[in-house]
Amino acid sequence: MSLIDRLDECARFSPHTYRPFVIDGLQVGRVRHEFARMLRAYPDVFDCRDDAVGLAASLRTPESRTAAVAGVLEGLRDQGMFAGWRGEHYPVSESYYAAPLLTIERAAVPSFGTMGYGVHLNGFVRQSDGLHMWIGKRSMQKQTGPGKLDQMVAGGLPVGIAVRENLLKECGEEAGMSLQLARTAVPVGTVSYLTERKEGLRHDVLFNYDIALPPDFKPTPTDGEVDDFFLWPISDVLQRIRETEDFKFNAALVIIDFAVRHGVLTPDDPEYIVVTEAIRLGRFSATKVR
Amino acid sequence: MSLIDRLDECARFSPHTYRPFVIDGLQVGRVRHEFARMLRAYPDVFDCRDDAVGLAASLRTPESRTAAVAGVLEGLRDQGMFAGWRGEHYPVSESYYAAPLLTIERAAVPSFGTMGYGVHLNGFVRQSDGLHMWIGKRSMQKQTGPGKLDQMVAGGLPVGIAVRENLLKECGEEAGMSLQLARTAVPVGTVSYLTERKEGLRHDVLFNYDIALPPDFKPTPTDGEVDDFFLWPISDVLQRIRETEDFKFNAALVIIDFAVRHGVLTPDDPEYIVVTEAIRLGRFSATKVR
Repeated sequence: MSLIDRLDECARFSPHTYRPFVIDGLQVGRVRHEFARMLRAYPDVFDCRDDAVGLAASLRTPESRTAAVAGVLEGLRDQGMFAGWRGEHYPVSESYYAAPLLTIERAAVPSFGTMGYGVHLNGFVRQSDGLHMWIGKRSMQKQTGPGKLDQMVAGGLPVGIAVRENLLKECGEEAGMSLQLARTAVPVGTVSYLTERKEGLRHDVLFNYDIALPPDFKPTPTDGEVDDFFLWPISDVLQRIRETEDFKFNAALVIIDFAVRHGVLTPDDPEYIVVTEAIRLGRFSATKVR
Repeated sequence: MSLIDRLDECARFSPHTYRPFVIDGLQVGRVRHEFARMLRAYPDVFDCRDDAVGLAASLRTPESRTAAVAGVLEGLRDQGMFAGWRGEHYPVSESYYAAPLLTIERAAVPSFGTMGYGVHLNGFVRQSDGLHMWIGKRSMQKQTGPGKLDQMVAGGLPVGIAVRENLLKECGEEAGMSLQLARTAVPVGTVSYLTERKEGLRHDVLFNYDIALPPDFKPTPTDGEVDDFFLWPISDVLQRIRETEDFKFNAALVIIDFAVRHGVLTPDDPEYIVVTEAIRLGRFSATKVR
């Protein structure tokens, strides 16, 4: 068992089982062939060809696309699809910074393979015996990764909220952190992955932050998303990531990136380059298909 | 002008002008078609096919390959190729951690497109008015990047020296740093690129280190590689990278990675994800071709 096993979990993708999801000449996602065949039942909304899924030509504005797609997805939900319906919309766009082409229910994002975005916070404490990291244990009620180990604070980014604003909000809600303390968090880069999970295809970019916490700070679960918090030496955290599947797949990736940035992993490790290279997909973006 | 221009300089590559350089069924590099045709004159050493360049089947050991290839390269050097001959060998292998399949003169590495490795040190000072970084100005006598701005300490990794050992040596030679101070440098990850330069194809992985320097430390040029050192606010360094080509292409990449890791760049920047993704190639390694 090694860190490579965890990184491989972030790169499980069989291209031949998908066809592109295309809007305005841009590939914005990937749809499984079975799901594409299912969408044929809605020709007023989806334009299903053998080589791609698009939207009906009549749907020209973000508002009309969002409403039409929502109608189909709510019908499919009522037939039992999209476990863990959130009532929270994610943008579908050329990039994180572009205006949305439409928005779709978060629970349906992995069925369209469109991009998701999140913000994850590494909460660490510098002690005389080395770096320690605060780890959260996810509630058994969570739809994805119930009971798994996770960052102290982590969440998806819905439409209409800035990264830092969302982080500050989650720091209060998930860990009972004061706004004054939360504001000392520093952005440290991104990790990204394209991988098949139970819920579908996850193609996410996570914005990561580090926060150096005072020794007397203790996170408190306040919103029921996290059951418990633990403060562990970083070497124990890494050993657990190497030897078990206790961590949520993307939380493990965020911690591996942390370990690289803080010199916990070193060039002496024969996996070093493979690990540092695998943390991000590299040079991807929505692709022009016309 | 933006950081993206600098990152694009690290990704200039036209696949169709190269054919693979293959040893033992592994693609270990890329050779320009012109150079491949030139190597046809040495059938005892090179096996030049239209779709690949290999070594003659009789060359089965690293020692015999190294000696035979060195003979050809010295001949070509005497005809005026390989400006800046170093008399220093780089390994050619499946990965940094694998035993070399052969070693070749450093100045010829870009002609074979085999991988190079380096170690770069970000020397920074935390001042009350923010992060400052020590920048070196390369000697006009340097073969690559004469007069360009660079990390305080940076160097290629020849055969037979460990990353950290080489860094400690260069800290003394290039910046007059004490061993005690140099030992406080921390590994912080890698950057990598595959790009066409005047000297040929550069496919490098750089091992990066950070060092937090005391305010009273001043680097001193000792070995003639660096003409001068400057301590600049990190925002001035980034502005200069954005607006000029004063920095060596790979030094700019190392500083952009530093700026991401230290929160100098933030997710509010519309280039943030493109920048964080472009810092490394992602999931590459020598490719099995058999």
